[in-house]
Amino acid sequence: MSDTMLKGIYTPNVIPFHTDGSINEAELRRYVDWLIGKGISGLYPNGSTGEFIRLSFEERKRVVEIIADENRGRVPILAGAAEANIDLVLSAATHYAELGCTAISVTGPYYYKVSQESIEHYFRELARLSPIDIVLYNIPQFSNEISVEVVRRLALDCPRIVGIKDSSRDMPRFMNTISKIKPLRPDFSCLIGCEEILLPVLLMDGDGGTIATSGVAPEVVVKLYQSVTSGNLAEAKQIQFKILELIETILGAGNFPEGFREGVNLRGFNMGRARQPMSPGELNHFNSISSRLACLLGECGFHEAAAKCKNPSTSANSPALKNVNIDAMVREIMQKL
Amino acid sequence: MSDTMLKGIYTPNVIPFHTDGSINEAELRRYVDWLIGKGISGLYPNGSTGEFIRLSFEERKRVVEIIADENRGRVPILAGAAEANIDLVLSAATHYAELGCTAISVTGPYYYKVSQESIEHYFRELARLSPIDIVLYNIPQFSNEISVEVVRRLALDCPRIVGIKDSSRDMPRFMNTISKIKPLRPDFSCLIGCEEILLPVLLMDGDGGTIATSGVAPEVVVKLYQSVTSGNLAEAKQIQFKILELIETILGAGNFPEGFREGVNLRGFNMGRARQPMSPGELNHFNSISSRLACLLGECGFHEAAAKCKNPSTSANSPALKNVNIDAMVREIMQKL
Amino acid sequence: MSDTMLKGIYTPNVIPFHTDGSINEAELRRYVDWLIGKGISGLYPNGSTGEFIRLSFEERKRVVEIIADENRGRVPILAGAAEANIDLVLSAATHYAELGCTAISVTGPYYYKVSQESIEHYFRELARLSPIDIVLYNIPQFSNEISVEVVRRLALDCPRIVGIKDSSRDMPRFMNTISKIKPLRPDFSCLIGCEEILLPVLLMDGDGGTIATSGVAPEVVVKLYQSVTSGNLAEAKQIQFKILELIETILGAGNFPEGFREGVNLRGFNMGRARQPMSPGELNHFNSISSRLACLLGECGFHEAAAKCKNPSTSANSPALKNVNIDAMVREIMQKL
Amino acid sequence: MSDTMLKGIYTPNVIPFHTDGSINEAELRRYVDWLIGKGISGLYPNGSTGEFIRLSFEERKRVVEIIADENRGRVPILAGAAEANIDLVLSAATHYAELGCTAISVTGPYYYKVSQESIEHYFRELARLSPIDIVLYNIPQFSNEISVEVVRRLALDCPRIVGIKDSSRDMPRFMNTISKIKPLRPDFSCLIGCEEILLPVLLMDGDGGTIATSGVAPEVVVKLYQSVTSGNLAEAKQIQFKILELIETILGAGNFPEGFREGVNLRGFNMGRARQPMSPGELNHFNSISSRLACLLGECGFHEAAAKCKNPSTSANSPALKNVNIDAMVREIMQKL
Repeated sequence: MSDTMLKGIYTPNVIPFHTDGSINEAELRRYVDWLIGKGISGLYPNGSTGEFIRLSFEERKRVVEIIADENRGRVPILAGAAEANIDLVLSAATHYAELGCTAISVTGPYYYKVSQESIEHYFRELARLSPIDIVLYNIPQFSNEISVEVVRRLALDCPRIVGIKDSSRDMPRFMNTISKIKPLRPDFSCLIGCEEILLPVLLMDGDGGTIATSGVAPEVVVKLYQSVTSGNLAEAKQIQFKILELIETILGAGNFPEGFREGVNLRGFNMGRARQPMSPGELNHFNSISSRLACLLGECGFHEAAAKCKNPSTSANSPALKNVNIDAMVREIMQKL
Repeated sequence: MSDTMLKGIYTPNVIPFHTDGSINEAELRRYVDWLIGKGISGLYPNGSTGEFIRLSFEERKRVVEIIADENRGRVPILAGAAEANIDLVLSAATHYAELGCTAISVTGPYYYKVSQESIEHYFRELARLSPIDIVLYNIPQFSNEISVEVVRRLALDCPRIVGIKDSSRDMPRFMNTISKIKPLRPDFSCLIGCEEILLPVLLMDGDGGTIATSGVAPEVVVKLYQSVTSGNLAEAKQIQFKILELIETILGAGNFPEGFREGVNLRGFNMGRARQPMSPGELNHFNSISSRLACLLGECGFHEAAAKCKNPSTSANSPALKNVNIDAMVREIMQKL
Repeated sequence: MSDTMLKGIYTPNVIPFHTDGSINEAELRRYVDWLIGKGISGLYPNGSTGEFIRLSFEERKRVVEIIADENRGRVPILAGAAEANIDLVLSAATHYAELGCTAISVTGPYYYKVSQESIEHYFRELARLSPIDIVLYNIPQFSNEISVEVVRRLALDCPRIVGIKDSSRDMPRFMNTISKIKPLRPDFSCLIGCEEILLPVLLMDGDGGTIATSGVAPEVVVKLYQSVTSGNLAEAKQIQFKILELIETILGAGNFPEGFREGVNLRGFNMGRARQPMSPGELNHFNSISSRLACLLGECGFHEAAAKCKNPSTSANSPALKNVNIDAMVREIMQKL
Repeated sequence: MSDTMLKGIYTPNVIPFHTDGSINEAELRRYVDWLIGKGISGLYPNGSTGEFIRLSFEERKRVVEIIADENRGRVPILAGAAEANIDLVLSAATHYAELGCTAISVTGPYYYKVSQESIEHYFRELARLSPIDIVLYNIPQFSNEISVEVVRRLALDCPRIVGIKDSSRDMPRFMNTISKIKPLRPDFSCLIGCEEILLPVLLMDGDGGTIATSGVAPEVVVKLYQSVTSGNLAEAKQIQFKILELIETILGAGNFPEGFREGVNLRGFNMGRARQPMSPGELNHFNSISSRLACLLGECGFHEAAAKCKNPSTSANSPALKNVNIDAMVREIMQKL
């Protein structure tokens, strides 16, 4: 059984592109370095937020090479390896193992509908052949669901499968996953991929999450995790409700994951060209949401974003939450780090 | 604004029938009296668990009459009034107000798909005309969803609308509901209708729930609520995970809500004939699940159910949870009551 | 086995209401008489278009009483009897049999999700006990789907079940229904409840349809049926494409079935108050669609509707179809009747 | 505007693999040659049946190279080019244009949910830049739906977009597509990707289809098309109902598209290893369905398949359809070719 257990806040990595569409390696390195400096627990390249499906196989491998090189072993890397067929997954897995990654994350097969029996068989084959630990990635919005019963059987039979990252937004399902697996395999990582319920998940013995918002406001998400660890439930709740505002604004910006890319821009990076183009009408909407996101990030104390907030007074639709003092909290954590 | 706020554990009432299909009034009275004795916070007739849709209008009114009479004002009654059109809802509302109910619960219109704009208009009309407080009942599995945005506007504009009972199983939605309404209207009741996430909901400032399992094992659900109130999170978690087993078994019994009806039978009542008949094959399955449910209830310390457990050793599929000492916890609470 | 086979165009009956919300009996009689005069094959009260779910049990029975009385045996009546439980369905069935109806139409159970096994058992029980022939009503948008396999078994085993009315909009399903049942029971009526595919259904050996548009423009739908019967495929296609325009406009008017109610108004009747109120914004939209529908009906040669067309030149978004001479076709059929 | 209009039966090409997982070029050439000999109208590599998503970008390009080379200009090629981002689609498009393909087929973006506005913008960009005609590929089961309204606007504005291949199984949608586009752009190809409704589609002015069953029984599907062309509706109906049996059996074999691969095996080819492995239990089921499919193909007069039918008497679940004389029909067409 694995001696490393995935815990805490993993950050799905958005990818900066040059105007010619190629990966902007320098900016990716600068961004990864910044994230690690903010105290995140691990990096997560080639997830849905990282638009793995819009990169070529070679680009996906290059992304992990850059990130692993820049990381220099500072934090664990969970590398997305949801390739088109099992041979390609294993080829990627071997490469990511050689690069020193901690585990790979693999979705259920996508595009086609596939039976639970085939999904189970697929992961058993992967577990048998993979040179690196595997995290199941459940995201039924985009690919075939991996049922709790299949997860349970895989967890009990396959030491190579060390956890699940669940982005289904389905809290009853997450509760059942914990309830059915943790008593029998306590070191099986149960990570959530949905910031709206990060706090309840942590309170119910979840191990952490792959939280896309932590790519935009790592200070805030890391602070929530620390508040739970230190038993400060009141503070954790305040932060959780602030994260709800952030994620709603980000998801309202347009096609996933453009809002996250813009959030990173607002923190001082240059994500560059989008891989999925937006229409002029959508760009207009996007720009107004960008301003609102800038205001929200400004309220959290991020001055580089505040500068781009055009209309501070109307930014918050939940005035009572405005005074949550994330700013002060953030300063506190920055001092500790 | 209303001076009564709905809080705690409301029990959706299953309805006992005679063999000729009519309501078994004596058994219903005995059952309601038993529930109140177990410490539930309120009664909830004519919900989905009470098969309101399979009763006639007259039967629905009769159910509330019996329950209100038997209750004698001991606990608040939230009466389901999801009638076929607004005139009938108001007619029911007037009757339930006269019977001393605390509020009515109304789903979005069912059967047809209806726009959010119409749903909002419908509830504004109801709020304008109703002689009794209204709880919105969101259950998108069976009827039109009431969007969070509509709930928010209704909550801010309509004093008559005093809360929401959300059975959508959607925790991110529930978090957003709390986040957007509570800061502006703290007395707006946010009740969950999904026992799998009762504990996280209570920890995130939810006010309680309409919990069908509390009709089968009121001691267990009431104990969870008290554990949270008294700050014993570890105990609350143990109970929550036990409730997961109970609800999974109950829902696996067959067509909703037959598993709940059987659970009440196992506690010593006679629910009688089902309104939706089962095939012979389904009855076979039902009986095997009934035995398993008996074992689970037996493990909780309910001796009348334990007697019907045919195969105790194989009952639990989560052996590590078996030793949760609900039995002792239950004794403790029984002494207090 | 039944000696009457349901065939042709059945018209789902919308119900006129007085301003106090009660059924407008005189207008209903006038409307039914008009429909029969236009040559429809049968009447269909208490369907989804007739808002059965928004009427009380007593009102539903009254609707059939009025229609049967006004009909005086001129056309067969298929009476909707999708009541809340099997006892009430049978009670309605007995009443409708006494009134001389040809058959009842019953949906799968609605509101709750119910297994196919239970649905089959439910219809077998109904078939065993019903004093009148039964048509299965498949409308998965609003109630539980009845699978083709269940339909097939019921058709082969239960003489009382004489047909299916399928409103699923699923042509592959309809093809399979015909393919699996007709060779073994040729007199099993396969009716479609979707005007968009009426012509292909008739060409593939379907027996007809319950076509809501025939309540607004009976001349047009009856003409399509006659074109098929007389082998004039080119004419039938022209009419089918015209019906596509009509139904798209009607469905775009707002909450179902308000567009149908307005269409009947435009033909010179007074449907009165809606049972599901519309918001002011929705009413605005509704009025503009009403004008467009008036123009479309005017193009079909219905002068009473043409008078309410405010902007004839912009009414049609498919100019090439504008010249379909329904007007002349309609005159031709009116002479024959 | 394009001078070539896509018409008739296009065959989606399944891909044979060696035991090491690589493409079996020799068998692919033999298969393509056989298909052309059977009279299909065109070839369709890299569709869903061809498992494009499970091939690498290089393999997809190689598939088209082999097929174009073997085809030697005998029939038009519609090449699937649903690549991961617009740069890759254009790169593939350029290659396929150079190989002499007639058009490329492109799905709406998959994996992520994308707005209709973005989808329209995406195809407008493609149409502006592509060196080859484009067929829209609507398959909402697997990728984002392209709404009829977007199809209409693209058809009217973009000469490069020459048709739609619709695999949605949604006949009302197909009717609307024809109704809204054909009067204004008669040469816009409307192809169906659903064999269950091929005949009704052809009768309603559809131009043909990409019909996966034609990869297994090209004689049968081609015969249906010719029956329609020659006005023999009765014969066409018989064949259509036979195709319903074939497709139901093929789809029941297991994960898509294994049943099609097995059908081609039964016709005397060696498709080899599956890219998505099956569990032992699924393989058992697969083998029993394979035998049933062999019997069905045997009934159509294909002797090489009949030899693998283990239990002819129980093969058909629609006895009345058994005697459809596809055998004789097939001989007739073979003589003509």
